[in-house]
Amino acid sequence: MKHFTSITDVEHPDALIQQVVNLKEQPQFSNIGKHKTLGLVFFNPSLRTRLSTQKAAQNLGMDVIVLNINKDSWKVEFEDGTVMNGATQEHIKDAVKVISSYCDIMGVRSFATLEDREEDYKERVLTNFVQYSSVPVISLESATLHPLQSLTDMATITASAIQRPKVVLSWAPHPKALPQAVSNSFLQWSPAIDAEVVCACPEGYELSDAFTGGITTMHNQEEAFADADFIYAKNWSSYDSYGATPAVEKDWTITVEKMALTNDARFMHCLPIRRNVVASDPVIDHSLVYQQAKNREYAAQAVLQNLLEDL
Amino acid sequence: MKHFTSITDVEHPDALIQQVVNLKEQPQFSNIGKHKTLGLVFFNPSLRTRLSTQKAAQNLGMDVIVLNINKDSWKVEFEDGTVMNGATQEHIKDAVKVISSYCDIMGVRSFATLEDREEDYKERVLTNFVQYSSVPVISLESATLHPLQSLTDMATITASAIQRPKVVLSWAPHPKALPQAVSNSFLQWSPAIDAEVVCACPEGYELSDAFTGGITTMHNQEEAFADADFIYAKNWSSYDSYGATPAVEKDWTITVEKMALTNDARFMHCLPIRRNVVASDPVIDHSLVYQQAKNREYAAQAVLQNLLEDL
Amino acid sequence: MKHFTSITDVEHPDALIQQVVNLKEQPQFSNIGKHKTLGLVFFNPSLRTRLSTQKAAQNLGMDVIVLNINKDSWKVEFEDGTVMNGATQEHIKDAVKVISSYCDIMGVRSFATLEDREEDYKERVLTNFVQYSSVPVISLESATLHPLQSLTDMATITASAIQRPKVVLSWAPHPKALPQAVSNSFLQWSPAIDAEVVCACPEGYELSDAFTGGITTMHNQEEAFADADFIYAKNWSSYDSYGATPAVEKDWTITVEKMALTNDARFMHCLPIRRNVVASDPVIDHSLVYQQAKNREYAAQAVLQNLLEDL
Repeated sequence: MKHFTSITDVEHPDALIQQVVNLKEQPQFSNIGKHKTLGLVFFNPSLRTRLSTQKAAQNLGMDVIVLNINKDSWKVEFEDGTVMNGATQEHIKDAVKVISSYCDIMGVRSFATLEDREEDYKERVLTNFVQYSSVPVISLESATLHPLQSLTDMATITASAIQRPKVVLSWAPHPKALPQAVSNSFLQWSPAIDAEVVCACPEGYELSDAFTGGITTMHNQEEAFADADFIYAKNWSSYDSYGATPAVEKDWTITVEKMALTNDARFMHCLPIRRNVVASDPVIDHSLVYQQAKNREYAAQAVLQNLLEDL
Repeated sequence: MKHFTSITDVEHPDALIQQVVNLKEQPQFSNIGKHKTLGLVFFNPSLRTRLSTQKAAQNLGMDVIVLNINKDSWKVEFEDGTVMNGATQEHIKDAVKVISSYCDIMGVRSFATLEDREEDYKERVLTNFVQYSSVPVISLESATLHPLQSLTDMATITASAIQRPKVVLSWAPHPKALPQAVSNSFLQWSPAIDAEVVCACPEGYELSDAFTGGITTMHNQEEAFADADFIYAKNWSSYDSYGATPAVEKDWTITVEKMALTNDARFMHCLPIRRNVVASDPVIDHSLVYQQAKNREYAAQAVLQNLLEDL
Repeated sequence: MKHFTSITDVEHPDALIQQVVNLKEQPQFSNIGKHKTLGLVFFNPSLRTRLSTQKAAQNLGMDVIVLNINKDSWKVEFEDGTVMNGATQEHIKDAVKVISSYCDIMGVRSFATLEDREEDYKERVLTNFVQYSSVPVISLESATLHPLQSLTDMATITASAIQRPKVVLSWAPHPKALPQAVSNSFLQWSPAIDAEVVCACPEGYELSDAFTGGITTMHNQEEAFADADFIYAKNWSSYDSYGATPAVEKDWTITVEKMALTNDARFMHCLPIRRNVVASDPVIDHSLVYQQAKNREYAAQAVLQNLLEDL
């Protein structure tokens, strides 16, 4: 594995998922990362990713350096060829070449702006990191994908040991427009496990074909929930009317009543979650969300370990 | 010891104070914290606590992860049952469960808002951490108490080896309304050492009975200073007219002249100190304040060591 | 070496420069810093310095604590004798005494304000750190000097193995007024290597005599570039009309055409660089800037190693 920016970087996703499950069942410390430095660069806020990736690196004996790039450092320019006489102070290509020269592995988080679909789906920040870094790059969530989260989610489902479960990715309400990254990535990874996957969302919220390929999309949430073993809730804004939040007629909040329509399904969410908006308190309080969060540590540790082995 | 949020968490406060004195006299490094992670969560600014606790953890071989929660991460919701469709992004209970899952010990700092006495004295933030954390919680100063500071202060007084000293906790001026945490905590810990303790403050600034129990409160600063061996200065806002700063007639700034009324007393303050407002330069420049600050490292180390031993 | 705040702190600058070259040629890890703590205090933004110094310390086995002092901690007062009833919360002397008590070596970054030349050239922040610190102090760039950068630059030039190269420090345009620190420091260090050094700048931008001593200053950029082996570009504001940016007639941006006037010179810059303002893209893209940035790690490591050996 050269980088970890999406499932397409992973030769054997099923083996990687199993590696995460094994770590969860038997946590491990090692010295493979001794005298190796992980640099974590954040353009956006982070709690789970920030902490779990640091913890994972420390489990492997790595040193970690964290940079809140726009706050601790200089304002970053992304356009090539710009005459930089405005507010931006350092070009992304210079920043990445320099940061990577102090690291053995680098992680970067950068969200979609939701202003220009083409721009976001070009993944300019992540692409610049991969292009200019002299070391492997891990996506800590990019404009359109969140592979560490999806790897975690696949491992969490696999660890349940349910045979060919029905998994519903359900859109849920949210007060602000959110990127499609977690949902895109979830669908992109789901073929790596043996599951029946359905995407449920209101009309106007269909995800990009690039990720929904062979997956059924339903517009009736109750119907989709029938016989489900896992309900994975997530909000996202429109892909078609990019970044918009078209009005939704029914209430898509996930409640105890809706969970009762399932096959005793486990509720999943990547967190942070808007309680009583995305899902009601009792649904969240009896869910897999904290196991998912903890599994982030094992997912990061498996990815780091593989990258370290291939250095 | 399960948590360290106030003296009531400590079975033998006198032994813990002595442990701090011993560390000060013979600093120690150990590996007891190897492969253990301390997570430090800050809702408010910190210098001494931030640095001394990191240093103490590193002395024990621990890894440390620091989170400035509202800046690096998501805005936190504290109300139970809220429909989270406003500005807050993650519920405290979710944040704490997740953070604690990556740590072996967790510290949290959160100040009083001084808007609602009942709210502050309920210690909602700290209480949520203790309730939802899966690991021991250390208070890095809470709304109403600052036990690491008080443990330090008791050790600093003990290390002086003065027999049954007279210790005066004296209110002093400050340009802004401050919480009562340091002072409450000082009085709460003072019975753990053999000392005569007096609280001196202007009328209207009396502290809560919960902490002044058997301790004399005087409204005449000069009188209180007579025969004192230690003057511990601190500003706080009113407990009765909660958070208010009633006008004070006399000048309560601690000066060389006032120190001359004492039994050659040592001046103490937890820092940061507003020079020439709380106390004059020469008083601060010949004081125990830097020894106190350094002793913060030993206090944190003793607490961490005990918690690690009990994991 | 007691501190590292300018070349005058270094007994044998040529030996130190060679030590950096050696580290670059053969990077090293050691345990000399085990149980030693480096405290890095930032009053201003930093990328290279922040990361390279952390990395260098970790190469030596040190623990590192980073403090963004005005953001993570308290607003700092610099005036002596002030009645601190305003916005500042902690006096620099108290902050430094306390921070240094938790560290074995301390670094500090603080930029010039460009408002008052006398104030800036007094180096109040750095001087306070040196005065009140109980441990060695490293300048991570001060108001008027940037010795870690200059040590790096001298090592980068030395590593090229060109015999007595001609080195041109050339002023270049920038949208904002910048300090003279990098340029002052470059000139101050240049006598430590065997080179012919010329300073090229528009009229009104002459640097202080204290640093240009025996060095030729030219106002014709093209003329200065003739036969040059290294072009070191940097913007700075006026020293005479302190902090001003007098209008400049010609275009001083460094272009491929201007580089063609040289003896196939290598382009250098400390970064961050405003692309197509200071120099054009092709000049930067075929330059030593990333080697310089990487050499910052070795410069910091050499300095830390020497300070650790002298503890």
